[in-house]
Amino acid sequence: MQRLLNNAENYVDEMLEGIYFAYPNQVTSVGNDLRCYVSKNVKPGKVGIVTGGGSGHLPLFLGYVGEGMLDGCCIGGVFQSPSADQILQTTAYVNQGAGVLYLFGNYSGDVMNFDMAAEMAQMEDINVMQIAAGDDVASAAKENSEKRRGVAGIVFLYKIAGAAAEAMLPLEEVYRLTQKAAENTRSMGVALSSCIIPEIGKPTFHMEDGSMEIGMGIHGETGVRRGKLKAADEVTEELMDSILRDLPYQDCDEVAVLVNGLGSTPREELFIIYRKIVEILKTRHIKIVHNYIGEFATSMEMAGVSISLLRLDEELKKYLLMPCSTPFFVQK
Amino acid sequence: MQRLLNNAENYVDEMLEGIYFAYPNQVTSVGNDLRCYVSKNVKPGKVGIVTGGGSGHLPLFLGYVGEGMLDGCCIGGVFQSPSADQILQTTAYVNQGAGVLYLFGNYSGDVMNFDMAAEMAQMEDINVMQIAAGDDVASAAKENSEKRRGVAGIVFLYKIAGAAAEAMLPLEEVYRLTQKAAENTRSMGVALSSCIIPEIGKPTFHMEDGSMEIGMGIHGETGVRRGKLKAADEVTEELMDSILRDLPYQDCDEVAVLVNGLGSTPREELFIIYRKIVEILKTRHIKIVHNYIGEFATSMEMAGVSISLLRLDEELKKYLLMPCSTPFFVQK
Repeated sequence: MQRLLNNAENYVDEMLEGIYFAYPNQVTSVGNDLRCYVSKNVKPGKVGIVTGGGSGHLPLFLGYVGEGMLDGCCIGGVFQSPSADQILQTTAYVNQGAGVLYLFGNYSGDVMNFDMAAEMAQMEDINVMQIAAGDDVASAAKENSEKRRGVAGIVFLYKIAGAAAEAMLPLEEVYRLTQKAAENTRSMGVALSSCIIPEIGKPTFHMEDGSMEIGMGIHGETGVRRGKLKAADEVTEELMDSILRDLPYQDCDEVAVLVNGLGSTPREELFIIYRKIVEILKTRHIKIVHNYIGEFATSMEMAGVSISLLRLDEELKKYLLMPCSTPFFVQK
Repeated sequence: MQRLLNNAENYVDEMLEGIYFAYPNQVTSVGNDLRCYVSKNVKPGKVGIVTGGGSGHLPLFLGYVGEGMLDGCCIGGVFQSPSADQILQTTAYVNQGAGVLYLFGNYSGDVMNFDMAAEMAQMEDINVMQIAAGDDVASAAKENSEKRRGVAGIVFLYKIAGAAAEAMLPLEEVYRLTQKAAENTRSMGVALSSCIIPEIGKPTFHMEDGSMEIGMGIHGETGVRRGKLKAADEVTEELMDSILRDLPYQDCDEVAVLVNGLGSTPREELFIIYRKIVEILKTRHIKIVHNYIGEFATSMEMAGVSISLLRLDEELKKYLLMPCSTPFFVQK
């Protein structure tokens, strides 16, 4: 495997040591557990926001911990869930008396462990509410949307939740706004190659040169169909069509757009795709209020891209456009 | 080729259209040429800074055009130089009467075209000075350092030059500070795989699984040696040893460190490498004042990493730590 690591067992902890070395003024770990990652600047009295999930997706998940965004993140092994105990420990640290929102992707291991941690936290008199992001339209039909998995669209939810908490809104309001953002977020992606999980050492799945999997998940979960690799404009049309049909967008709607590279797709190509998105939305008279173009939720060195749209109203727009600053994500 | 594009001939221009769509308030093109890329907010009376080079290296080169950094960038085809005419046109636009600094990587095509543009600009009474960055210690021996090619270390030079110009220093001072930064910058990288130039459609060179090329350039230029792929810590030691030996660093020196992913290396691994850099510099009592860890100068989907060090003194530190903001690079 053409990768730079020492040994697979230490992969996550050595990565975390590097991150703590890099940003000592901004983040730290709690309870002698490198995998309980928190902001050093948790604002007194603020609603806490905790996320978590498997490693291998940087800047997801920990990269969104910081000013105006999240307060804590629990880190699992590559593509594995953190434990309920780690979530509880992180919750106790970030809780400032105003309660804590859990915000994570809709994957069974994460759902189970966040759920268990929430029960334990309630027993310690910490008020916890939960949202499991399920923005990937390719992962289940609309009538089974509770089964949809979370992908890069969770970044919109982090942004809204973080800004709402930063504005010192109470837990129920932070929850309401974030839930509204979740209901108005849709994503879909395409994968062109597999990635290698360090402990396994070989590609998770095989894709032939010249093929693509439309709707594949960020761990290699099956998508809508596998077929011949098409031109970027056609791929973009197909993704946008599924997104726009799933949540009927109206003329004059305002949206935020996120174009996410999965790992090895050159940044150049994300802009070729964004160019086509602009054209498509123009014909629909949908206005782009803000864009994010880069790597926001990766899958190690997987090739491919995902597109996420957040439909905005006045209050979502207000929180989306507020500034934030983490070691991995700065919005002015 | 597992890549997202329409057709190879339009690759660069479609990418640029996407970028102009994405950042309409920050950048624009001049003279009806998409490849003459300038900041929309050139500060009156300020020294202008112009860079340029081939495409395929995002965020290099154009990503550093913006507030507190560069004013213009001329864009060539993938791995190709922009033309002297494009450089002249961009120069004329950014010149505010205080002169212009050309700051580019030391590659023959770029050197030739910037040189020609400088002559033409002088004929139009624009005062131009030039610096060709040559930070890659693997590309030539120390006694032939004028032959060294430029790699990711140029980002340090952009930062210093941009901050010095933003502070309204005259051209000679901007030049002196940037030249001092150039003399104190050293880089070296390792490549683990090739990339594919869209117009060619197949890998530029072949690397067997389990091998690496120490010191390879960002276009695949030969390095110091090809050998068996080693553990991340050993690779880091080898790169750091070459860098530290080339510019004798002293105990108690202060440095900035840049760890750069070449394209498909997961961000996780850049932190495994940074962890080892911190350990090595600690034993040498060299203090890290600032770090940059991410993708700053890529080579499409090439796997690998480069490390750059800038030795600081008080004035370099002052300009390094000043804020800046471009669509691709924000420092608070």
